[in-house]
Amino acid sequence: MLCICVAGEEEQQAQSKKALKKQQKEAEKAAKKAEKQAKLAAEQQETDEDADRALVRVQDLTPEKAEQQIWVRARIHTSRAKGKQCFLVLRHQQFTVQALLAVGDRASKQMVKFAANLTKESIIDVEAVVKKVEQKIESCSQQDVELHVERSEARLPLQLEDAVRPEGEGDEEGRATVNQDTRLDNRVIDLRTTTSQAIFRLQSGVCQLFRDTLINKGFVEIQTPKIISAASEGGANVFTVSYFKTSAYLAQSPQLYKQMCICADFDKVFCVGPVFRAEDSNTHRHLTEFVGLDIEMAFNYHYHEVIDSITDTMVQIFKGLRDRFQTEIQTVNKQYPSEPFKFLEPTLRLEYKEAVAMLKAAGYDTDFYVLDKYPLAVRPFYTMPDPNNPKYSNSYDMFMRGEEILSGAQRVHDAQLLTERATHHGIDLEKIKAYIDSFRYGAPPHAGGGIGLERVTMLYLGLHNVRQTSMFPRDPKRLTP
Amino acid sequence: MLCICVAGEEEQQAQSKKALKKQQKEAEKAAKKAEKQAKLAAEQQETDEDADRALVRVQDLTPEKAEQQIWVRARIHTSRAKGKQCFLVLRHQQFTVQALLAVGDRASKQMVKFAANLTKESIIDVEAVVKKVEQKIESCSQQDVELHVERSEARLPLQLEDAVRPEGEGDEEGRATVNQDTRLDNRVIDLRTTTSQAIFRLQSGVCQLFRDTLINKGFVEIQTPKIISAASEGGANVFTVSYFKTSAYLAQSPQLYKQMCICADFDKVFCVGPVFRAEDSNTHRHLTEFVGLDIEMAFNYHYHEVIDSITDTMVQIFKGLRDRFQTEIQTVNKQYPSEPFKFLEPTLRLEYKEAVAMLKAAGYDTDFYVLDKYPLAVRPFYTMPDPNNPKYSNSYDMFMRGEEILSGAQRVHDAQLLTERATHHGIDLEKIKAYIDSFRYGAPPHAGGGIGLERVTMLYLGLHNVRQTSMFPRDPKRLTP
Repeated sequence: MLCICVAGEEEQQAQSKKALKKQQKEAEKAAKKAEKQAKLAAEQQETDEDADRALVRVQDLTPEKAEQQIWVRARIHTSRAKGKQCFLVLRHQQFTVQALLAVGDRASKQMVKFAANLTKESIIDVEAVVKKVEQKIESCSQQDVELHVERSEARLPLQLEDAVRPEGEGDEEGRATVNQDTRLDNRVIDLRTTTSQAIFRLQSGVCQLFRDTLINKGFVEIQTPKIISAASEGGANVFTVSYFKTSAYLAQSPQLYKQMCICADFDKVFCVGPVFRAEDSNTHRHLTEFVGLDIEMAFNYHYHEVIDSITDTMVQIFKGLRDRFQTEIQTVNKQYPSEPFKFLEPTLRLEYKEAVAMLKAAGYDTDFYVLDKYPLAVRPFYTMPDPNNPKYSNSYDMFMRGEEILSGAQRVHDAQLLTERATHHGIDLEKIKAYIDSFRYGAPPHAGGGIGLERVTMLYLGLHNVRQTSMFPRDPKRLTP
Repeated sequence: MLCICVAGEEEQQAQSKKALKKQQKEAEKAAKKAEKQAKLAAEQQETDEDADRALVRVQDLTPEKAEQQIWVRARIHTSRAKGKQCFLVLRHQQFTVQALLAVGDRASKQMVKFAANLTKESIIDVEAVVKKVEQKIESCSQQDVELHVERSEARLPLQLEDAVRPEGEGDEEGRATVNQDTRLDNRVIDLRTTTSQAIFRLQSGVCQLFRDTLINKGFVEIQTPKIISAASEGGANVFTVSYFKTSAYLAQSPQLYKQMCICADFDKVFCVGPVFRAEDSNTHRHLTEFVGLDIEMAFNYHYHEVIDSITDTMVQIFKGLRDRFQTEIQTVNKQYPSEPFKFLEPTLRLEYKEAVAMLKAAGYDTDFYVLDKYPLAVRPFYTMPDPNNPKYSNSYDMFMRGEEILSGAQRVHDAQLLTERATHHGIDLEKIKAYIDSFRYGAPPHAGGGIGLERVTMLYLGLHNVRQTSMFPRDPKRLTP
C-alpha cells in the first residue's frame, strides 16, 4: 500500500514581477476563500493523534526485521520504472533503502504507474514487507534488505546525485557536479544531501563537545549582548544598526563582555553565539556572520594555564568527533576525501619567532598546534605585553591543518595600563568607558580566546570553503536564503 | 603573610568631557612612554608559571583543613579594624569566609594598618592558617572555620551588602537598598553579589538542561543567521542594519530558518541564540534583545507529539534545576523569597477557549501549563488552521507562574496554503520567496516553539523583572554597559 503524505510541487521558476503582481491580485481575490481552503488543507494533513501504525526509521531496516510488515516515511531519492515493476531508493537523512513495487496481488497496474510518476523528493508513507536480499545492495546504506512496495521524476533546481558527486568526477566522466552558488541558492535541497546531513550533525557535535568539556572544567555559560553602543575592537569593520532614535553596532566579538564577567567574579566563562564582521573579504575562509566559541578564564600564576585549558578542550573535541562521529566523517569523505585529523598530546606549542623554521626542520606530525608570543604591534589594544620583551605579547593563535582557528591572549587587567594601551591605538576612551571602568574595582589576571565554529568544522573534515560548514552563509555578496 | 595581587582603584566619577580631552592629550604625550610602562606593569603581574603554592578555593575551606597553612585568592568583602586586630570577610563567588589579622609574631603593626586600609573589592592573595571555631560564624558561608591573617573601606558606586538586602528591608530598618538603574549602570559590581552569581549559574544550567534533554531525544543543534534580507514575521518591530551598499534586518526569531531545516530533513532541530525585537515596550518582561531557545520538529501523526516533547523538555529542566541547583535557589530566595516551582506530570494541557473558567474552577496545583488552540486571527501567517474550526488554530502557549514563556504552533507545510495565508496577512511574497520555496519539494508536517531564556529563569526563581536575568539587558532606553 502506498500513502502519499506530502507531495512535492514543481517550482514556478523565473517568476517575473508582472506575474507576481497578477498572482497577488488573484491571491487577494482568493483571500475570502482562504479560510475555507485552509480548513480543507488542514483536514488533508490532520491525522489521528492515536494512530497505531508505528513508523520505522530507514536506518533501522535490518535483516532482523525480515518478513515484517512495516510503515516507513521517507523521501523519494531515485526511481526506475521497468515494465511492470518500479524500483526506487527511499532516503531519510543519511540513510537509504531500495524499494520495489510490482504489479501483482498487492498492487494494481494503475498503482505502479501512479507511483512511477510521483515527484522526486516527495515524502511518502509506504507500507511494505522487509525482505532479505542475497546480494548486498551497494548503492544503499541498508545493504541487506529491500522493501517490497515504490515512485518518478521531476525537474528540481539541482539533482541530489549530482550534489554528492566527488569534485572533478563530473568533468572526467561527463557527469554533472553542482556549483557552489547553485547549491547555496537552493540550500534547502543541498542540505538534504548525505554530505550536508553529515557535516551539520558533526558540527552540532563540535558545539556539544566544546560545552560539555568546559562545563566539566567548572566553566559557566554566559549570554552576551550583540547590540552594543560602541564598537568592541576599535571601530573598523563594524555593522551599524538603527536603534530607536539613535544608532548602535553589532558586536564583532563578545570580548569586552566576557572580560567584564571575569571582573564580576565568574572566573571561567564561555559563550557560543554569532559574531559580526563588516569586512569586505571574499575568500574561502571569511564570513560576515559566523559562530564564535568563546572562552575567558582567570588564571592563578601564568597565562599558559589558559592555553592548556583551551588546547585540552580542542583535544577533547577531536577525540569526541573521532569516536562518536565516524559515520559522518566517512560520509563526508566519500565526496571530499581527506586524511584523518592528527593531533598530539600534549598539544605542540611553539613560539611565534621560531615557529616557521622549527616546523620546517622538525616536521611534527600534527594538524593542530599553538603559536605563542606574537608581536605586540599586530594584536588588539587589550593584549598584555610580554614582560620580557616589550615588542612581543602574551598572545597566541591556534592552527588546524595550517589555518588559524583561534586567536587569544592574556588581557590587560589594570585600568591604568588599559587606558594607556587604548590611547596608543587611537581608541575613543569615552566609548569604552564601561569596559575600562570594570577593571577599577579589582580584576584577576585572565586570558582567553575566540574560536570560529565553521572553520573548525571545515578544517577537521578537510573541506575547502567555510560556506560548506555554514547552514545559511553570509558574505559581502550573499544575504539569502 | 599578605600578598596583594590586584588592588582595586577608586573610580574617577563624573569625568567631564573637558577633563577627558585633557586626559586624552596627556595620554597622547604619554604614548611614547607606554611601551616602557606596559613592560613594567606586565612584570608586576607576571609570576612564575611553575609556582608551587596551590590556591585553595573559599568553598573548600572546611574543618578537614584545620591547622593547615594555605593560600587563598579572594575579594575583600567587608572589614572591621579593632585595636591591634583587623577582621575581614573574604569572598569568592557565592562563598565567604572570615579572616583575622592580629599584631604578633606573624604580622607587624604596620602590616595590620596597611591591610585595614586596602580598598574594598580588591582581590588579594593571603597565606593563612585554617582554624576551627567554637561558635558557628553565621554571617559567612564557611561557618566552621576562620583564617588567621586580613584589610579596609573604599567608595564604591554601590555597596554589595546593600545590593543583596531583601526588597523593602531598606525602608523598614533605615538601611539602603540599591535601585535597578544603579545596579545596571554598575553591572560588573552588581553581578558579584551572591544573588547575581546564583541567578546566572542557574541560567547556565537552564541552557545545559535544555540542550542535553533535546540531544538525548535525537535533536540536532543548528545555527541560524541573525542578519537576514527580509523581516521574518511580517515587517513590524524589526531593527535595520546597514549591510555594505544595501540594508538588512536583524532576525526577530529563527522561525523561517528552523523550518527550512525541517524541509532539509533534519527532522528535529533546536537552537540557542539572540533574537531581536524593535518594540518600544518598557515593561518588566520585555527586552529588545533576548536569548531564544528554539525547537522545531517533524511529527508523525499529530502536533500534540511536539507539545509532548516540549513539555517533557521543560519538565526535565525543572527537575534538573531542583536537583542540581538547590544552593543557587536558596541563595536567590534569601533576597527574593518565593515558593518552590510546582509542576505536574504529565503537564496540564487545556484548550484556550475553556482555560480561564477551568483554571478558576479546578484550581490545579501547578506553576506550568499549556493553553492549546488559539484563535487563528491572533497568530502569525505560518500557523496551521484548526481542521475542525477555521476560527481556531493548531497553536499553543506555555505558561510559568501565570506568564507566557513559549509561543508555538503546527506550521503550514504546503507552499500553496502558505502563499494564501501570507497574502491574507498582507505580507510581500517576494520577500519571503526563499522561505515559501522551501516547501515546494516536499515537507513533512511539523510544529515547534520558541522559549525566552530570561523569562524562564525569572519565573522559575519567582523574580519580578527580566532585567535581573539578563547579564547586560537591552531595552528601548538601555544600550550600556
